[in-house]
Amino acid sequence: MTYPQEAFVWTQLLPGSLIHSRREAVSANTLLYQLDVLKKTGRYDCFKLKWHPVYDEPPEIWPVPNHLFWDSDVAKWIEGACYLLHDHPHPKIDASIHELVHMIRSAQQDDGYLNLHYTVVAPGKRFTNLRDMHELYNAGHLIEAALAHQHLYKNDLLMEPILHYVDLLHKTFGPGKHQIHGYPGHPEIELALLRLYHRTNNPKHLELASYFIHERGNPSGVEGVHFFDAESRQRGDDPYKRPSYHIEIGGCSWYYSADKPLIEQKEIKGHSVRAMYLLTAASDLTSVSPNESNEQLRQAVHRLWNNMVDRKMYVTGGIGAIKQYEGFGQDYFLPQGTDEGGCYAETCASIGVMMLAQRILQYDLDGKYGDVMELCLYNAVLTAMSHDGKAFTYVNQLASSSADPCKRCDWFTVACCPPNIMRLLGQIGGYIYTDHSSDRDLCNGTNEVNGHNEHRSADTTAIDVHLYIPSSHTFTHDNKSCTLTQKSNYPWTSEITFNLDVPSTSDISLRLRIPFFARKSCVLNPPAPSSAKLINGYLHLPASYLNNLPHSSFTLTLPLNPRLIQPHPYATNSDTLTLARGPIIYCVEDVDNAWVTDHFKSTQLDPNCLNSVHETNIKDEQTEEGYTGLTVRNAACTVNMRRLEQKMHGMPFVEVDRDSVQGEMINGHVNGINGTDNEQIEAEYTVIEDLKFVPFYFRANRGGRGHCRVGLRRWNR
Amino acid sequence: MTYPQEAFVWTQLLPGSLIHSRREAVSANTLLYQLDVLKKTGRYDCFKLKWHPVYDEPPEIWPVPNHLFWDSDVAKWIEGACYLLHDHPHPKIDASIHELVHMIRSAQQDDGYLNLHYTVVAPGKRFTNLRDMHELYNAGHLIEAALAHQHLYKNDLLMEPILHYVDLLHKTFGPGKHQIHGYPGHPEIELALLRLYHRTNNPKHLELASYFIHERGNPSGVEGVHFFDAESRQRGDDPYKRPSYHIEIGGCSWYYSADKPLIEQKEIKGHSVRAMYLLTAASDLTSVSPNESNEQLRQAVHRLWNNMVDRKMYVTGGIGAIKQYEGFGQDYFLPQGTDEGGCYAETCASIGVMMLAQRILQYDLDGKYGDVMELCLYNAVLTAMSHDGKAFTYVNQLASSSADPCKRCDWFTVACCPPNIMRLLGQIGGYIYTDHSSDRDLCNGTNEVNGHNEHRSADTTAIDVHLYIPSSHTFTHDNKSCTLTQKSNYPWTSEITFNLDVPSTSDISLRLRIPFFARKSCVLNPPAPSSAKLINGYLHLPASYLNNLPHSSFTLTLPLNPRLIQPHPYATNSDTLTLARGPIIYCVEDVDNAWVTDHFKSTQLDPNCLNSVHETNIKDEQTEEGYTGLTVRNAACTVNMRRLEQKMHGMPFVEVDRDSVQGEMINGHVNGINGTDNEQIEAEYTVIEDLKFVPFYFRANRGGRGHCRVGLRRWNR
Repeated sequence: MTYPQEAFVWTQLLPGSLIHSRREAVSANTLLYQLDVLKKTGRYDCFKLKWHPVYDEPPEIWPVPNHLFWDSDVAKWIEGACYLLHDHPHPKIDASIHELVHMIRSAQQDDGYLNLHYTVVAPGKRFTNLRDMHELYNAGHLIEAALAHQHLYKNDLLMEPILHYVDLLHKTFGPGKHQIHGYPGHPEIELALLRLYHRTNNPKHLELASYFIHERGNPSGVEGVHFFDAESRQRGDDPYKRPSYHIEIGGCSWYYSADKPLIEQKEIKGHSVRAMYLLTAASDLTSVSPNESNEQLRQAVHRLWNNMVDRKMYVTGGIGAIKQYEGFGQDYFLPQGTDEGGCYAETCASIGVMMLAQRILQYDLDGKYGDVMELCLYNAVLTAMSHDGKAFTYVNQLASSSADPCKRCDWFTVACCPPNIMRLLGQIGGYIYTDHSSDRDLCNGTNEVNGHNEHRSADTTAIDVHLYIPSSHTFTHDNKSCTLTQKSNYPWTSEITFNLDVPSTSDISLRLRIPFFARKSCVLNPPAPSSAKLINGYLHLPASYLNNLPHSSFTLTLPLNPRLIQPHPYATNSDTLTLARGPIIYCVEDVDNAWVTDHFKSTQLDPNCLNSVHETNIKDEQTEEGYTGLTVRNAACTVNMRRLEQKMHGMPFVEVDRDSVQGEMINGHVNGINGTDNEQIEAEYTVIEDLKFVPFYFRANRGGRGHCRVGLRRWNR
Repeated sequence: MTYPQEAFVWTQLLPGSLIHSRREAVSANTLLYQLDVLKKTGRYDCFKLKWHPVYDEPPEIWPVPNHLFWDSDVAKWIEGACYLLHDHPHPKIDASIHELVHMIRSAQQDDGYLNLHYTVVAPGKRFTNLRDMHELYNAGHLIEAALAHQHLYKNDLLMEPILHYVDLLHKTFGPGKHQIHGYPGHPEIELALLRLYHRTNNPKHLELASYFIHERGNPSGVEGVHFFDAESRQRGDDPYKRPSYHIEIGGCSWYYSADKPLIEQKEIKGHSVRAMYLLTAASDLTSVSPNESNEQLRQAVHRLWNNMVDRKMYVTGGIGAIKQYEGFGQDYFLPQGTDEGGCYAETCASIGVMMLAQRILQYDLDGKYGDVMELCLYNAVLTAMSHDGKAFTYVNQLASSSADPCKRCDWFTVACCPPNIMRLLGQIGGYIYTDHSSDRDLCNGTNEVNGHNEHRSADTTAIDVHLYIPSSHTFTHDNKSCTLTQKSNYPWTSEITFNLDVPSTSDISLRLRIPFFARKSCVLNPPAPSSAKLINGYLHLPASYLNNLPHSSFTLTLPLNPRLIQPHPYATNSDTLTLARGPIIYCVEDVDNAWVTDHFKSTQLDPNCLNSVHETNIKDEQTEEGYTGLTVRNAACTVNMRRLEQKMHGMPFVEVDRDSVQGEMINGHVNGINGTDNEQIEAEYTVIEDLKFVPFYFRANRGGRGHCRVGLRRWNR
């Protein structure tokens, strides 16, 4: 097991790539901007445990107080900052982290308890609403902050109080007679505890995580009833009084991925971020404790992954169609925007997909996980931050509407997404490779060795390459320091050059993901030997090949031709076509197509348009961003909606045979009856000379009126 | 103004047609069956005001008690029975009506109040929750029962207590200082009061209806706030405790079509039956009281009609996509079934569309209203009753699913739909013609003249023919009895023969609806003169033409070729094709297509299939129903879903270019790397030799496994 939160230190991004530039933007802008927001909103000082006017506000989303996530907002900022400080030292950030850590330490109660809301606002009520009140979610983020803090600073200033708190939680929750047989409504602490166990080797940490995961959804966990029901009864909840995210009466345990135990779940449901965090933890548990019940858990993870990708994922890698509960609709319910039935695709949810994929790839090296991970990164996730790291989206619809134009915000009341992008980009190096050079625990409390200088040893070494991001990865083989470097202008150009700086003859092998779009026509140079095999989407290059490279170098060429994709035929928008190139999903925006007035609803694309797609290397003047723009020539149209609606004749449908209904004129068959004037027949559509596409992640960076769309309706010429 | 509930007595259906056979089935079976149900369930005796165990049950749909509609169930049965008894005398039904009327009389309180729930179950709480408790809805149905009862029996046994009750309501509601400034959550009483006014000429009845309609949605009706909010505050409602049909916190006044005054509403929203009943009443009010504010009301009715038909109506004439609140989704949200995002299309809602269309046609003779009325009748409404009148549907989805197979039920807890079909078919004769032979009030209390023997007189007479249902319509012109007869086998064959039995030279004109599908190629014989005009979809035949007919007869031929229709391109299912013929919408069922296993989800239809459609005159052996069946030959396919999902490669989309992704084999470009075995490529689809279609209304009449679908996905060969 390696965690990207720890492994990223062995991988250095090289300048020039899209991902590198975004990570630099986060370092340069987001970190300080978010610190400023923490201070302005009261979050920064919240662990001083003084009253804040916000605590008196009625909840925007009842029963969740508006300040309920503040603990986690602070924790995620600390965590993300710690990742970035590894290679971007910053005294002011350092000082703020130090101050926050001291405030957190001072906020801890004698018994170890550490939570803003239940200390200041609702004392005496701790652990009475695990379902809705994010108490353990906050604890999970504090654990993750402590892990990152200890990793960077090599001290226990934050880890110490957190371990004390975790001790209290371990005493409080479990199967024992006097313990609470419960688990959190929002998973997070489970994955945090498993990472903590990885660091501490303390079996209590594994035990508590395992308990939370396996107990979840037990239909008779507390005196014969579901824990959430028992807890609700204990609180005296009125059954007809329900949170706004409950779409029905009766607890909606499916919203929490807790309608049944995970091993029995067949369909991914409910809140999408919760589901991803839960599955990530479950996946980790199966790696840490390979036993029979965890094998069932692993099967459940696979089953739910497949259900999600096959039936509940947007072409951008976004998940979650339903705004009301920020979650999955039923199978194939994937409208593109608010005015088409909804679309949520929350940023954090696709970050969760990446987390889950990275974990699964460690025990099931299958290109389908790597492909989706790359899809999410370049589309659903990157689209959520502006090029300069100063503005964000929380919801990432595939089509705008007048109700929800395509635009970015500085911050959100529920501020999970911006710091989550910061955390992800901070540790992104850890997603590029899985390094099987060593199986020992990578991080061990304060004995953890220092970042880039740490080298690991093993006799045989395999390195999996999941992402093609220019970078240099350092590892130890045969007690010698080795480096794997990849350089490219991917995803814009096809050629990726690898350099393997290793002992002249070694037992190192590489496994390169061949993206699904390149499996037919990728090229390796020097040519691959017969012993090289493509297995489940990864090209296995043996030591014999790697030992005989001229200049220790080889190139992989991945074809990046524009492609057309469409949703599954059962999906809500099955008649839409989307332009893609390599891992990049494209969209149209009004900035490039100024004539648009209807969010491209009446714009249709010819399914035979690929021959008329032109690629242009663009360097945008305003943002200085470089990318490959695509232009479709004379193969798209705008439908004349006025004409179309005339043709409907006030009926709720359109005749398919265009000739059968023409105007209001009644013709010779009725023997010369005069009808109303035969109006001039307008054109059915107007061909668009040049329809210009930009990467979906680049939307909303250049102003404009907020018209944007990914999937365009098929033009049935 | 003529109301079909009164005008139907002048029109006699002729045997042999689909509509006639359904009306006979209702007379022979439904009426007695429903009487039996009323007795078994406790409804029949409910006006004895004794306690019933149901009254103790917790509500299935909080806060609505399960028995809340019982008053209306009884009233609707009485009403429907009275229509059918006009030409189907039945002593047992007579006796039951008599008994029910006496029970209703005995249940009236001294002050006129007449409601089961607030007399027996919650005394002292009357008029405290007009929003949800259906108190005035029940009153409306009692008024309609009394009108039908008086019309048939020529006595005031039921009318008397109802007038007493209406007096109480008139005192209770209004703008006066001590009156309640309220209106019902479920409209119904408004249209009932307007019909009552038509009978009584009592200005109080008009005044109360007008008050309810105009006050509705007033944002500051009670001390500066919306009535529903004021009423809710008065009850001390908890804002977070909401009925299950409220999808959000905050009252959901849009659900009741009361988010703003009707004259300001731009979009049809909320519960679809409520909206239709409200618009029907509003439409009537504009006819009864043509003044400036009612002119605005008329504009609103038109605006909301257009919004409904253009953007919120299924191709079957069904309305309402959302189950949770039995109502309209947003514009163009029209999935076909439960597993595609929902579909409700409640029977009563399309009956409401017919009511509204019939009313509008009296002042705006436009084919678009008549076309939709016919569409609803033959599809969304007829489909809700089995051929024998013994089984029903409440929800009329366009596609079945394993969660919601296509099947019928005997009865429903909320039993609005079955008696509503009975009421409609009872009075259906009144929908065929609008008779402008007389403007005098048709029905005047007990002085009402007797059914078929009544003839009206006028100098000039125009008769509008909206529906082509074999029938004979009697009217008076120039003091002579006249008859307009139409005979046909429509909607199966094209020719409709009219016979006009009138004085040899008269000033009678006819206006025949030319259905939208026939406007290009309908044929009139003898040929129409140049003075005949097609105006807004109605063919105006002048007296000069009608006076010179050989044998007083002419024929209209409406082409009934099979057609393909598709939803609006913005609609959820825009890539589906539906087969239609004349006004009949077709569907596929597993009874005729036994191979189906997936509710026809993977069945696709070639948009060029019309040349391969074969028509067959079918006489079904099991049901003895005759209809035109359609078979599409070699122009439909089933998609090989296994193959398709293989092609997706674990990604959330399908490549459009079929050649770009083939199997897992990596080819020669990568210099002979061995991939996993190149699996045998399966066929993409299987052509269906004969795909058999039946009218949608005929579904679920012959057993089967409940697989059914209207719109099939477009086959992009």
